[in-house]
Amino acid sequence: MKNVKCAKCIKCGAEVKAVPDLTTCPQCGGILDIQYDYDYIRSVVTPEMIEARKDQTMWRYKEFLPVEPETEFNKLKVGGSPFYEADRLAEILGVAKLYIKDDGVNPTASLKDRASAMAVAKAVEAGADTIACSSTGNAASSLAGNAAAAGLKTFIFVPERAPKGKVAQLLNFGATVISVQGNYEDTFRLSAEAIDKYGWYNRNAAINPYLMEGKKTVALEIAEQLHWKMTDYVAISVGDGCTISGVWKGFKDLYAAGFIDKLPKLISVQAEGCCPLNRAIAQNKPWEPMEENTLADSIAVGVPRNPDKALNAIRESEGVVVNVSDEEILAAMRLLGSTCGVFGEPAGVTGTAGLKKALELGLVPKTASVVSVVTGSGLKDVANAMKAAGEPISLKPELDLLEEAFAQQGIKA
Amino acid sequence: MKNVKCAKCIKCGAEVKAVPDLTTCPQCGGILDIQYDYDYIRSVVTPEMIEARKDQTMWRYKEFLPVEPETEFNKLKVGGSPFYEADRLAEILGVAKLYIKDDGVNPTASLKDRASAMAVAKAVEAGADTIACSSTGNAASSLAGNAAAAGLKTFIFVPERAPKGKVAQLLNFGATVISVQGNYEDTFRLSAEAIDKYGWYNRNAAINPYLMEGKKTVALEIAEQLHWKMTDYVAISVGDGCTISGVWKGFKDLYAAGFIDKLPKLISVQAEGCCPLNRAIAQNKPWEPMEENTLADSIAVGVPRNPDKALNAIRESEGVVVNVSDEEILAAMRLLGSTCGVFGEPAGVTGTAGLKKALELGLVPKTASVVSVVTGSGLKDVANAMKAAGEPISLKPELDLLEEAFAQQGIKA
Repeated sequence: MKNVKCAKCIKCGAEVKAVPDLTTCPQCGGILDIQYDYDYIRSVVTPEMIEARKDQTMWRYKEFLPVEPETEFNKLKVGGSPFYEADRLAEILGVAKLYIKDDGVNPTASLKDRASAMAVAKAVEAGADTIACSSTGNAASSLAGNAAAAGLKTFIFVPERAPKGKVAQLLNFGATVISVQGNYEDTFRLSAEAIDKYGWYNRNAAINPYLMEGKKTVALEIAEQLHWKMTDYVAISVGDGCTISGVWKGFKDLYAAGFIDKLPKLISVQAEGCCPLNRAIAQNKPWEPMEENTLADSIAVGVPRNPDKALNAIRESEGVVVNVSDEEILAAMRLLGSTCGVFGEPAGVTGTAGLKKALELGLVPKTASVVSVVTGSGLKDVANAMKAAGEPISLKPELDLLEEAFAQQGIKA
Repeated sequence: MKNVKCAKCIKCGAEVKAVPDLTTCPQCGGILDIQYDYDYIRSVVTPEMIEARKDQTMWRYKEFLPVEPETEFNKLKVGGSPFYEADRLAEILGVAKLYIKDDGVNPTASLKDRASAMAVAKAVEAGADTIACSSTGNAASSLAGNAAAAGLKTFIFVPERAPKGKVAQLLNFGATVISVQGNYEDTFRLSAEAIDKYGWYNRNAAINPYLMEGKKTVALEIAEQLHWKMTDYVAISVGDGCTISGVWKGFKDLYAAGFIDKLPKLISVQAEGCCPLNRAIAQNKPWEPMEENTLADSIAVGVPRNPDKALNAIRESEGVVVNVSDEEILAAMRLLGSTCGVFGEPAGVTGTAGLKKALELGLVPKTASVVSVVTGSGLKDVANAMKAAGEPISLKPELDLLEEAFAQQGIKA
């Protein structure tokens, strides 16, 4: 990898060789970060070269990615997700310009496909034929799907409380699913012991530094879709901190390589009932664990696994933090659906809910241009879509009853 | 529309002007079919021109589509769905070459987005601000989503038995949903009366001939993704007959315009419990209604609304008909998931289930090349995904129990 210099610990600064099966810092256990040679990148690729590429997946940005040139990585078509000018929603929210990036339109319907595709590519480079993780959510389903497409085996550890629907998706992808009679900590511990024993490749975004490099491709895409003219802000939901870190890394990479000439400010949105990272920023104190009181399950992370990178990202970008209630999240589902035709899961639309609130609170000026990232499909969580939805008009099949109902409810037919 | 000559009745042959709000034949009530001027199309576009286009949506084939050049139609990013070489699945099925077209990766997660995007474009041309249909399935959700993105209102009529999750999706897209206390016939009748009374644009694939023209874009994409070298067969699930008719129309268009030099044979796959069209072909008799005994709800159509076009398509292509059991459909869900990372709904994978069976029965030779179209995402129907899935390994969080379970079940870790 001529474009990669090394992996550097964000805690102690140690530099280690970027081998395919990197985990944490061998000296202090801190999280590693992949370091690039931007002079080299600048010398081999230009924005125009990327724009001319036929490859519509995340791998069109290969010069910015930590993969060997000969690695075969194009299994599932990850990336190339829709990017919409949301003029009507911008008007409703009262902001000058708004774009929606719908990353729910990915092979397994979430942004996590970007990380899992990277995990599969690095596992192949490492000579592994099996990948493992412990998760019940989008990380697990995207890993199982991407690994299946590449012919790799997966072992997924889930706590017994995992929803059957999600387990079903994993089993359909051919994963060996281990339902652990215990809580998430028990599940994680057993997976760590098993990974250690069997030598499986480890897909854990807070341990394996390559996964963030996959996630950052959403930022690379956004920048290209904006024709390299960045907006003032990018709003995104935050759970364990890996995604917002990845987004920030992507923009910084492009800035360092001279592809964009300004960096956006991040709008970090968490749920009111679970906002340890935003609270740390707001109070300018170290982060502390919180309860997980939100229906937005994908960001219900009371003990974030990637706090340092996330906090750095928000601070470096001179970002904004805002927390939203579950009601505000459900309202954002309807708002995105009805104005943009974009159906996101609760955690997926939390960024948009936060943008709305940040505008109302004056944290973001109405003259701003903003990208709001939707991180997963509403079909992932139909139960909460039902909570968001309201009720249909119910009537006998008679036209005059319909007219009556329209009149009563003030519906213009 | 210089590329469109007229709309022609497939029953009485009457030719009528292709106005934006076409429904059925004004003379005999038959279904209309859009007629193109292939000499004109050939004179203005080449395969190379299309390949060079940046637009990755279905509208990149605009010369083959019945829309005015000035119509603004690029609202949701419909089309450009993944196309995979499925070598491992081909080996398992015992066929020389197999491709999977995953049309579940679309904005509302089904092929129906192609028809609904077309409906919205034509409604805008017709000056309508409201579209209506009666359906509980993918047609409804794709219409609601595509119309929301374009700023059009939708009225969706559903029978009261409609699953709440699907109703929730419609409501999140801002549709006015009318839950009719009656069966599907009652629902359809009330919607027809209301459409008549209020003058809404009619999105009904068997009445509005433009919708098939949207659906055909999946065939145009397949041909381009094959670099205009068609496979011997294309396998697809069949319900009311509109999709297979659209697919055939797409290939015939390309053939007539000289873009491809051979037409594939269609593999028409229905559920054993509901196969009126395949039965008509197999027995060489007129079709007759059937019960709707299958869990593949999107193709459970006992009284198909587009029988003539579908039967013509299968016969003209010298196609193959094959029916599959619900067990075979569920098995195909697992097979596609575990070998390709493609998670389809039951009706979505029925084409693949049928291909498997057709190969086993010798209806399709093992030397053939085949495309199998997956028409909708497995997230649309998690309940059946659970039926398909099997059970996870359940155990206490202890490594030796895991080893024991692997040994017992013959799992190589």
